[in-house]
Amino acid sequence: MDKNKDKLYKIRHSLAHVLAKAVLEVDPGAKLAIGPPVEDGFYYDFELSDGFKIGDPELKNIQKRMRKMVQKGFEPIKAELSYDQAKEAFAQQPYKLELIEEFKDGEAPITTYEIAGFTDLCEGPHVESAHDIDARAFKLSKVAGAYWRGDEANTMLTRIYAYAFETPGELDAHLEMLEEAKKRDHRKIGKEMGLFTFSDFVGGGLPLFTPRGTLMRELIVDKIDSIQKQYGWERVTIPHITKSDLYKTSGHWEQYKDDLFYVKGKSDTEFVMKPMNCPHHTQIYDAEPHSYKELPIRYTETTMVYRDEQAGELLGLSRVRSITQDDGHAFCTEDQIEQEVRSIISIIKQFYTSLGMLTEGNYWVSLSVMDPANPDKYMNENGIFEKAEKILEDIAKEEKLPYKRIEGEAAFYGPKLDFQFKDAIGREWQLGTVQLDFSMPKRFNLTYTNKNGERETPIMIHRAIAGSLERFLSVIIEHYAGDFPTWLSPEQVRVVPVADAHSEYAHNVLAALEAAGIRASLKEATDSLGKRIRNAKKAKVPYTLVLGDKEQEAHSVTAEVRNGEKLEISLNDFIERVKKDIESSA
Amino acid sequence: MDKNKDKLYKIRHSLAHVLAKAVLEVDPGAKLAIGPPVEDGFYYDFELSDGFKIGDPELKNIQKRMRKMVQKGFEPIKAELSYDQAKEAFAQQPYKLELIEEFKDGEAPITTYEIAGFTDLCEGPHVESAHDIDARAFKLSKVAGAYWRGDEANTMLTRIYAYAFETPGELDAHLEMLEEAKKRDHRKIGKEMGLFTFSDFVGGGLPLFTPRGTLMRELIVDKIDSIQKQYGWERVTIPHITKSDLYKTSGHWEQYKDDLFYVKGKSDTEFVMKPMNCPHHTQIYDAEPHSYKELPIRYTETTMVYRDEQAGELLGLSRVRSITQDDGHAFCTEDQIEQEVRSIISIIKQFYTSLGMLTEGNYWVSLSVMDPANPDKYMNENGIFEKAEKILEDIAKEEKLPYKRIEGEAAFYGPKLDFQFKDAIGREWQLGTVQLDFSMPKRFNLTYTNKNGERETPIMIHRAIAGSLERFLSVIIEHYAGDFPTWLSPEQVRVVPVADAHSEYAHNVLAALEAAGIRASLKEATDSLGKRIRNAKKAKVPYTLVLGDKEQEAHSVTAEVRNGEKLEISLNDFIERVKKDIESSA
Repeated sequence: MDKNKDKLYKIRHSLAHVLAKAVLEVDPGAKLAIGPPVEDGFYYDFELSDGFKIGDPELKNIQKRMRKMVQKGFEPIKAELSYDQAKEAFAQQPYKLELIEEFKDGEAPITTYEIAGFTDLCEGPHVESAHDIDARAFKLSKVAGAYWRGDEANTMLTRIYAYAFETPGELDAHLEMLEEAKKRDHRKIGKEMGLFTFSDFVGGGLPLFTPRGTLMRELIVDKIDSIQKQYGWERVTIPHITKSDLYKTSGHWEQYKDDLFYVKGKSDTEFVMKPMNCPHHTQIYDAEPHSYKELPIRYTETTMVYRDEQAGELLGLSRVRSITQDDGHAFCTEDQIEQEVRSIISIIKQFYTSLGMLTEGNYWVSLSVMDPANPDKYMNENGIFEKAEKILEDIAKEEKLPYKRIEGEAAFYGPKLDFQFKDAIGREWQLGTVQLDFSMPKRFNLTYTNKNGERETPIMIHRAIAGSLERFLSVIIEHYAGDFPTWLSPEQVRVVPVADAHSEYAHNVLAALEAAGIRASLKEATDSLGKRIRNAKKAKVPYTLVLGDKEQEAHSVTAEVRNGEKLEISLNDFIERVKKDIESSA
Repeated sequence: MDKNKDKLYKIRHSLAHVLAKAVLEVDPGAKLAIGPPVEDGFYYDFELSDGFKIGDPELKNIQKRMRKMVQKGFEPIKAELSYDQAKEAFAQQPYKLELIEEFKDGEAPITTYEIAGFTDLCEGPHVESAHDIDARAFKLSKVAGAYWRGDEANTMLTRIYAYAFETPGELDAHLEMLEEAKKRDHRKIGKEMGLFTFSDFVGGGLPLFTPRGTLMRELIVDKIDSIQKQYGWERVTIPHITKSDLYKTSGHWEQYKDDLFYVKGKSDTEFVMKPMNCPHHTQIYDAEPHSYKELPIRYTETTMVYRDEQAGELLGLSRVRSITQDDGHAFCTEDQIEQEVRSIISIIKQFYTSLGMLTEGNYWVSLSVMDPANPDKYMNENGIFEKAEKILEDIAKEEKLPYKRIEGEAAFYGPKLDFQFKDAIGREWQLGTVQLDFSMPKRFNLTYTNKNGERETPIMIHRAIAGSLERFLSVIIEHYAGDFPTWLSPEQVRVVPVADAHSEYAHNVLAALEAAGIRASLKEATDSLGKRIRNAKKAKVPYTLVLGDKEQEAHSVTAEVRNGEKLEISLNDFIERVKKDIESSA
């Protein structure tokens, strides 16, 4: 959202003021903190009067008042105040006073907006008038606690969230998407399928993967490996900690030092947990001298990195502290950039095609390039940055990728391509990425000997296919709602004998499935048949085999397929069908 | 070594006194610290007089004086002193005085030994007389620095090391073994083969594995996995950090808290890096309720643990800070102990057989049992400890394992079996292990529902097959001196065209090898043929193919085999031969 241009931003911003006004109507003593627009609406933080609480009835009342204000109409009026005037105007609002302090020695004037007769400290922008807002297109959604300025040492405030859109239709679609997302919540499905767990002893954001969850991780990694092996990627192995010297040299220190986990042993050495792998990989490259003939050298590794996320930000597998990256770094000459980027894009395309996610309209690629207004910000020796941008754009065109140039989004050290995928309910996720890097090889004095026997600095390419395995799993669990392609299902067939009498036949069927390389399990008749079939559905098993007298006699199976289909076929035909399903889905 | 019974211990101990006497002869002002026997000899620490240094000539002189003292003969004379008498006797020896302080309030008398006219503070025991010592069976080996009491804050002392044995033959054999070990040093071979590296930016004891080293790690892990999969072991995945609560509950805290890496983020939570995996694995077990019908449940994982080893103790891959364990934990009922232990032993036997290391006389198994003198030290509810000891011993007998009962070596929570292997030059390494644990499941309240619907506590079995992958690699690199079985060689065939004219044929051969699943590389004719063949030998490649006119015309190869053999055969025959070699060596 570009806040100056975006109509939706302005609607949400103005509605935040309307919310504050409505809260002051029901709790005139409320102290106001801040109220910004957010991704799907806005919020406002309040310190409510002693004893005043906001439950469902209050929320309804506040929303009703907001609608009325919008229907009644208003035109935001902007004013400019000096520091002293502002101090006086907001004398009763301690949080506003704290914000005003930041303007004490500044030159910019302090601005306020009056909306529906209520004046708030605000830099804008806002709608022209209430006519721009559809009173049916917003909805207060929930109340939560939030610390002033996000700092646990400060007062806990009351945050009121709202969804807001341009039209009631968009609001309804969003509410429906949220309802659907709730059903698909990877935490719920992950539990039902028994994929991962958390432990209070171990701590938040540190998932433990069960055999099934581990199997899914491995199937994903193996799939990527089987594709990238053809392109010359080789696996390496690094430890999870390093002396801080590594990041001081790589240049990551300044940017990351507040989000690192620091590691302390008996010695004075300052160790940290790695938040990324690239600097470690440079050290493997640098272990031996290299000739141009060996390049590109391509290292890949599936390894955990650690980032000190705030406890309040942790969410299932979407936001964790132990992040498994399928990371890769190629070292190449300038001439090899094109071939390398092309092969990485090919890996990304093959992988997401196998997941059925690379379909028209369901993905796009962002090409992050220099900000033309600030060319000096970038490492552009001999115009290499621009050359590289052109290479990336040419490839995007040739590969017919639906791409957008995003100016100013590139890092100072090189342009990049990011793959953005839409999931089944329309949410967008950035997954695969290719990023050029003209800086790090220089910082570590990496070299190779060129054709003329001179030392040159290689170019480094960072790439991820699935990105973080945890986040990737959360995305695909919700995308498929657990109904993974059969090749990726941790359990492909569940065998359910009707009664104890069919146990032996069921075991024979299980053995035949396993011998055919099909992942299967058997649930004996200790629970009711109905319950066992329901459990198999909950666990999202693609095929459930119900085996009774009839099947036993005919050496056949009755298979309940995940899509509702029912098959009554011979065991051999069933095995062939599942094998074909696995192959075609992979 | 049992110091009261062991003759070698006494010889080494008495020789340490003789060394101190000889040093005092050449540097009468030397201050004496301590001088204990060690694995292959003894050492003594001295604070030498200002300006006095011990180089090779001094070392020779000291050794000559020691030999003379032994040849002249002596009989150690023991004396008992009070605290005050001892203070007076050692008034000129500050380190001895510091040691004497520890006896200040004690009841035990302070003992001294007079050997060859020199009296030292010592608790014994010693030889009866110099006749027990062969003056040709010891050798001063080196001089090194060592801090008083191992503490960097203390004075740096001069440590003189010596080898000492009962006979000159044993000394010679030891020196020969050391010479051989030097040639096989895994740090040297690892570098020549390009398996791993260290970086000053990353830090000591934190190896980085190249593609070749990573491949070897994976071949080892895959081999173990392929064996243990048949026994129902399933892989899980855990993070490398945890709240300290996990170890406070598991009971590891007290024992390990000084050797842990502590992890600090923005929050107040106390995190640590995991030094072991068992407590994490209990949390995966505990994520769901379990019935006796599901047991045994077996989790395995190849994952890095971190231990804060002293910088001075680090040594190549033998002693590292990031330790990759091939760890496994089974949860079972008491009735299942036997079947589980038997299957784990079977895995260990299959794995080491495939490495050719499980041959008679080259391994033995230690059975660690209770100390009969302290039965109360052990968790022996309903005699389970004794029952388990008997199960382990019965299995050891039935499996015809060459085992020794070692009383008092068991942990308080359960008995164990450790596999000890001799390498090619006779050094012994403890590798595979099976350890019963009656404690941890109780500490974490793990349960399963038994046949009668009651909750019971499972038994936990810890097991490792290769142990630490780093240490295992260091052992097998030195055992094979880099000449790994072909299945384990990172590069199985190296293709060396004689000249540029043979490059195309060489590439065809390379492609044919790779198509047959053989790991091969090609070195173009940019260096001399001799140099390339020598490099292939250094890299311990089992087969080097030299391809010239003759081979190109005949579509054949000339293969230099690692064992010195030379093959001149068709390409197809060569491929068949290598494939057979890989299969039979695996």
